[in-house]
Amino acid sequence: MNRYIIKQLIKNALLEDMNNGDITTDNLIDEKSISTAEIIAKEKMIVCGLEVCKLTFSFLDNEMNFNKKCKDGDLVNKGDVILTATGKTKAILSAERTALNFLQRMSGIATKTNEFVQRVKGLNVKITDTRKTTPNLRIIEKYSVKVGGGYNHRYNLSDAVMIKDNHIKASGGIEKAVSKIKNKIPHTTKIEIEVDSLEKFKRAIKTDVDIIMLDNMDYKDIILAVKLNNEKILETSGNITLENINEMAKTGVNVISTGAITHSVKASDISLKII
Amino acid sequence: MNRYIIKQLIKNALLEDMNNGDITTDNLIDEKSISTAEIIAKEKMIVCGLEVCKLTFSFLDNEMNFNKKCKDGDLVNKGDVILTATGKTKAILSAERTALNFLQRMSGIATKTNEFVQRVKGLNVKITDTRKTTPNLRIIEKYSVKVGGGYNHRYNLSDAVMIKDNHIKASGGIEKAVSKIKNKIPHTTKIEIEVDSLEKFKRAIKTDVDIIMLDNMDYKDIILAVKLNNEKILETSGNITLENINEMAKTGVNVISTGAITHSVKASDISLKII
Amino acid sequence: MNRYIIKQLIKNALLEDMNNGDITTDNLIDEKSISTAEIIAKEKMIVCGLEVCKLTFSFLDNEMNFNKKCKDGDLVNKGDVILTATGKTKAILSAERTALNFLQRMSGIATKTNEFVQRVKGLNVKITDTRKTTPNLRIIEKYSVKVGGGYNHRYNLSDAVMIKDNHIKASGGIEKAVSKIKNKIPHTTKIEIEVDSLEKFKRAIKTDVDIIMLDNMDYKDIILAVKLNNEKILETSGNITLENINEMAKTGVNVISTGAITHSVKASDISLKII
Amino acid sequence: MNRYIIKQLIKNALLEDMNNGDITTDNLIDEKSISTAEIIAKEKMIVCGLEVCKLTFSFLDNEMNFNKKCKDGDLVNKGDVILTATGKTKAILSAERTALNFLQRMSGIATKTNEFVQRVKGLNVKITDTRKTTPNLRIIEKYSVKVGGGYNHRYNLSDAVMIKDNHIKASGGIEKAVSKIKNKIPHTTKIEIEVDSLEKFKRAIKTDVDIIMLDNMDYKDIILAVKLNNEKILETSGNITLENINEMAKTGVNVISTGAITHSVKASDISLKII
Amino acid sequence: MNRYIIKQLIKNALLEDMNNGDITTDNLIDEKSISTAEIIAKEKMIVCGLEVCKLTFSFLDNEMNFNKKCKDGDLVNKGDVILTATGKTKAILSAERTALNFLQRMSGIATKTNEFVQRVKGLNVKITDTRKTTPNLRIIEKYSVKVGGGYNHRYNLSDAVMIKDNHIKASGGIEKAVSKIKNKIPHTTKIEIEVDSLEKFKRAIKTDVDIIMLDNMDYKDIILAVKLNNEKILETSGNITLENINEMAKTGVNVISTGAITHSVKASDISLKII
Amino acid sequence: MNRYIIKQLIKNALLEDMNNGDITTDNLIDEKSISTAEIIAKEKMIVCGLEVCKLTFSFLDNEMNFNKKCKDGDLVNKGDVILTATGKTKAILSAERTALNFLQRMSGIATKTNEFVQRVKGLNVKITDTRKTTPNLRIIEKYSVKVGGGYNHRYNLSDAVMIKDNHIKASGGIEKAVSKIKNKIPHTTKIEIEVDSLEKFKRAIKTDVDIIMLDNMDYKDIILAVKLNNEKILETSGNITLENINEMAKTGVNVISTGAITHSVKASDISLKII
Repeated sequence: MNRYIIKQLIKNALLEDMNNGDITTDNLIDEKSISTAEIIAKEKMIVCGLEVCKLTFSFLDNEMNFNKKCKDGDLVNKGDVILTATGKTKAILSAERTALNFLQRMSGIATKTNEFVQRVKGLNVKITDTRKTTPNLRIIEKYSVKVGGGYNHRYNLSDAVMIKDNHIKASGGIEKAVSKIKNKIPHTTKIEIEVDSLEKFKRAIKTDVDIIMLDNMDYKDIILAVKLNNEKILETSGNITLENINEMAKTGVNVISTGAITHSVKASDISLKII
Repeated sequence: MNRYIIKQLIKNALLEDMNNGDITTDNLIDEKSISTAEIIAKEKMIVCGLEVCKLTFSFLDNEMNFNKKCKDGDLVNKGDVILTATGKTKAILSAERTALNFLQRMSGIATKTNEFVQRVKGLNVKITDTRKTTPNLRIIEKYSVKVGGGYNHRYNLSDAVMIKDNHIKASGGIEKAVSKIKNKIPHTTKIEIEVDSLEKFKRAIKTDVDIIMLDNMDYKDIILAVKLNNEKILETSGNITLENINEMAKTGVNVISTGAITHSVKASDISLKII
Repeated sequence: MNRYIIKQLIKNALLEDMNNGDITTDNLIDEKSISTAEIIAKEKMIVCGLEVCKLTFSFLDNEMNFNKKCKDGDLVNKGDVILTATGKTKAILSAERTALNFLQRMSGIATKTNEFVQRVKGLNVKITDTRKTTPNLRIIEKYSVKVGGGYNHRYNLSDAVMIKDNHIKASGGIEKAVSKIKNKIPHTTKIEIEVDSLEKFKRAIKTDVDIIMLDNMDYKDIILAVKLNNEKILETSGNITLENINEMAKTGVNVISTGAITHSVKASDISLKII
Repeated sequence: MNRYIIKQLIKNALLEDMNNGDITTDNLIDEKSISTAEIIAKEKMIVCGLEVCKLTFSFLDNEMNFNKKCKDGDLVNKGDVILTATGKTKAILSAERTALNFLQRMSGIATKTNEFVQRVKGLNVKITDTRKTTPNLRIIEKYSVKVGGGYNHRYNLSDAVMIKDNHIKASGGIEKAVSKIKNKIPHTTKIEIEVDSLEKFKRAIKTDVDIIMLDNMDYKDIILAVKLNNEKILETSGNITLENINEMAKTGVNVISTGAITHSVKASDISLKII
Repeated sequence: MNRYIIKQLIKNALLEDMNNGDITTDNLIDEKSISTAEIIAKEKMIVCGLEVCKLTFSFLDNEMNFNKKCKDGDLVNKGDVILTATGKTKAILSAERTALNFLQRMSGIATKTNEFVQRVKGLNVKITDTRKTTPNLRIIEKYSVKVGGGYNHRYNLSDAVMIKDNHIKASGGIEKAVSKIKNKIPHTTKIEIEVDSLEKFKRAIKTDVDIIMLDNMDYKDIILAVKLNNEKILETSGNITLENINEMAKTGVNVISTGAITHSVKASDISLKII
Repeated sequence: MNRYIIKQLIKNALLEDMNNGDITTDNLIDEKSISTAEIIAKEKMIVCGLEVCKLTFSFLDNEMNFNKKCKDGDLVNKGDVILTATGKTKAILSAERTALNFLQRMSGIATKTNEFVQRVKGLNVKITDTRKTTPNLRIIEKYSVKVGGGYNHRYNLSDAVMIKDNHIKASGGIEKAVSKIKNKIPHTTKIEIEVDSLEKFKRAIKTDVDIIMLDNMDYKDIILAVKLNNEKILETSGNITLENINEMAKTGVNVISTGAITHSVKASDISLKII
């Protein structure tokens, strides 16, 4: 993870929560008081975000000491202590909510991703995220997906080509779109194209693309596409659920991408207790 | 909403998605091409975030024209057009994902909040959010709660006092904590205190607090507290679900706060189509 | 005080004073030279801003050592040493003016506030500031008021309601304005209303407001209002001077707010001497 | 004035006053309501800051219309209308305090500067400011000094050399300090040196400095220095008051600098009324 | 180009050149004075940076009118007018240097790139830039390379894998490095590996990399590598000059990358004249 | 140099090169791996930028240790080690390119400046830079000029007056322009005026300017100007090359300014090797 972007996110989040200080803690807790807090899992989960959590407390007390009881990616159970922090009581109380907000969201994503990954265990397929991430939190959400056992799709609009329907129309067809862009982009950049029918797929495999996204095609057609394919990476997306992902994986596609692991996530239940 | 904070959020989100341009669109779509896009609900929802959505597109084409088919807070059905946007094709395609990421999350929150609100219809109780919001998105998430029919709790640590267990311990008891802080804060600031037993509640109602939070107390005790109360605002929180909220509301408390309406939300299903 | 906002203020102030270095010191003082500087009161004052002062020097030499001779809120006399700093001579000379500009303004506010507070000693009234603070320095100016023995009014437009004449007009009367806003704001937020006559005061005390500001009313009417009042907090403001504040306090109001303690302050006379 | 720095100051000041919106105005005033406000002098003053004031309102309503009744530098009397603004009522009410905070401080500085300038009318001397300005507001405070009829001293540590006692000591004497720095700085940069005795003055006039600051010397010695001088610019500073400035000016010095016109200023009394 | 990053660059550059205004122009040129300026090529060049140049002037006068006499990528000759700008004289004079600094550097890069491109005309090879760009100006320098007829290499460390010697050592060999990273990165990301001998090349072509960089290998070995290659993209780099690039291109490599077109460029000679 | 501006430049440059991490190094190099790197001159040069280089590595590993083999301004030869750095392998590899980009550009400027300076050795003339610097890098480029033995001209538009042709025209002549601006600027600010003929020069020496720039005048006229001059600083500029600078210096002018030492520089050849 890019530490400077993370730090900026944390700093902004703390300022969001304290534009003018923590009026309760600033007035009731002694500046010199020291405490130890336990961060505890209240349900089963894949833990994710320990560094972000620690950095958040450290912003308010740069001498805070931590004792990690597990690491990102570990499965913990209800009641397990994830982390202990010892430092200024004021810093612990003022940073608590922001630190947990990060940790709960990140663990939620890792946990949900892992559920999908478990369903395709043993099958030769990668589960990836999409760009359907929370605005401004992409860097930590894509990290959480990896921690949960998933893979990342392209990071953003700058780092890989994704030719969609409107790009094809504007260029005068699949072949023209691909050859036009091939001649403009770095040789270090891959091209993915989205097709929604076998017919278009057959045209796409003859072009110079690297990846073909089979968009909303039925299993039968996907299986056919897998057979017709020789060297392209095949990806599917759209309405992937825990229920249907195994069947989709069995079609033989290489990659299944799903927005649900980042945009519709239950925060993991985690609490902090001063001991 | 505070327009300048929102604009900063949008700008950062667009830069997150385009550190170096949209390599596909920049190379395939003509600078002068103009299109109209429809933003369409793919399921029933309370729409929320139309201004944020419009501002996102406007960042990339400040002459984009919009035609709002509904307004924040409206209930729309699957297939309904929410908004149309006419402007540079490039701007529409490059801003699409970021605009939808905002709109889907905000509508998701409004929709979920509304489900809770519907369950207590007719009862004299307010459903509020908490500080368990996505880091850096609090301003739009608290707005979405209001659009969904809920109320806001305190915005952050700066604008109201919330005395919790650790503050009480550090001050030497409920009475001392309240009187100590009362003498330090602005006369414009309210004090809320958290209690987890009837005994503590009875001490709290004798102090100069404005609000008492009944934390994880059972229905019976909450009902007793409501009876004993004369003038304080009574709030409950913790493990509120669609299933139990009506029973909780019937205890007679004034406020029920829940983190789930912001931290564990399914994004509303919304798509964009160029027509 | 919110340390991150303060640090940003200091950093910007140093950049304002050195867009391109300190052309004198950079060229004449050896990088390795170490000195000790005394910061000395040149007149009687309530000292305020020691942490800000120290942070300013530390920005240019993060190993600067300080020896505090007093603490914020102490009364010092002409000639007293407030603080000594030992570190890079270059850092001391380059930061001197910025550090003193903060310290002199903050001490000036604390000192002036304290003069007002002394005049109402023994009376049950709070002296508060207003939002008439220097743009971008509110956080340190409101802190200085507290150091001087005063209280803070609301921090800004976000954290308490203040219904003024124009809001009342737009809402169709005092009662309607109060009930309208009561139904929209968090239950954690107080409502203050401004009235300028006994008649309006009588209407206001029947509404659900928490605080009533008696604006420019004469002593006689204020005394009457105090009598009529049962439970509201009463505040007065406008043209409060050292001469009339005692009389105003004797009316029995709870709060007297004054802009003069922040917007029209003589900087305390403080100098730095390298020893 | 540097428009981009000013705009940043205004934006930050508005965010300081509204981290989360104007809770009163946002909830009581209709988005579409339009009003006209008069900004009125409540005492005699030199007006300063009209552009800053206008920009502040324009931040919240970029279609606000203004009608300037005077311009920066004009003398206005109690009751005079300075400016009228017509635009969104919400914008007027939310920006009012920030706009006035700027305008009152800037007019206060211009007015105080002008009092000093009036005292030396007809004498060939310039009254200048110092670097004793409010942190982060230097650009508008130095502008206000000019509007009041004063002159600016160096803007900051980067743009002119000022050799003080500690620089002299570190360099081994006046002559060495001057020749050392002369050989390092741009040929476009002036050198000022501070002396506190006639003896040192006599050494300084033989060096390659452009300006000599006579620091805390008595009138008799200053008059002697003026006589001995041939080509240097002579400046005095320290404890300049309205009472003694005329006598100081009559010594024949070229420049009198004073911090009081920026650091110890009474805000001009100005109010806003919606008509 | 990413307009918001560009605008930030321009804003910062103008502030760098005017921390406190343009002391000459602000004091001598009337606010209302309007002029027309011609921007003129003083030598033969490929023009590049017209939008950046226009945006710079527009920052100081957002109503500035422009008349483009050519477009980015055009070859112009000594004496040709590139652009005329009509607007506030003050804005033209204050922005002149910053606007030209951008335009001259960008045109210099485009011109130098084009010289290299001309030398390999007719050969099937792409000339690309590297990451050896001026810190913080990469976005405009990579754009200038494209305008000059070159191609871009990867934008930065985030968007493509480049395995160098130290990565190979740390991973235990070429094969292990490739297979290790292949299993961690998005399927949308390409892998490039650097080899400096035929032996290593032969191992690399058997792995799952997309691009092989032949680092400092002699022509003979490069020609052999081209023959041995079946499907990888071959790139060379290191000490490419106008003199040797044609010979390098004739080896049959696909890509020649060179840092010289961005890090060692003569600014194009361009001047501005008010007419 | 102003450390905070430098740090901001470095931070932005690293973010430019790693919006989302270093995908190669993050995935292949162990977090705990420690290495030592040598930074080596690949040609003869004046070294410049060691502090910037060190700060860049320190951003990614704040415990990086350095061993400086030379200091800014030293002449080093091909093969000389400039600096060794010992710290996290990941930090070394990720920061390498950015650190070298700074070091190579700065050394290139110092080296080129020094070539000019060597040509006028023994002559009483200063070689200065101009404002023709790379946008946003002025602070480090002007520093590099000094390291190379040159002098700085004015830093920017704010810190010295430079009256050019258009300012003269707008003011009604040389004399009026000078006297107008003399009455507006600080007494700490110098005035330079540009003239392009002997006739204008003769008028300029009678005014109150400090410096006269002889713009594009031939040697004969420059020599005449030097004779006619009594006390002004004389500067020439325009088309200064290594070939003609000695002849120009012999005219007797005080200052020769040249943009070429900053805008058209070959980056010094420097590489990093992990040992």
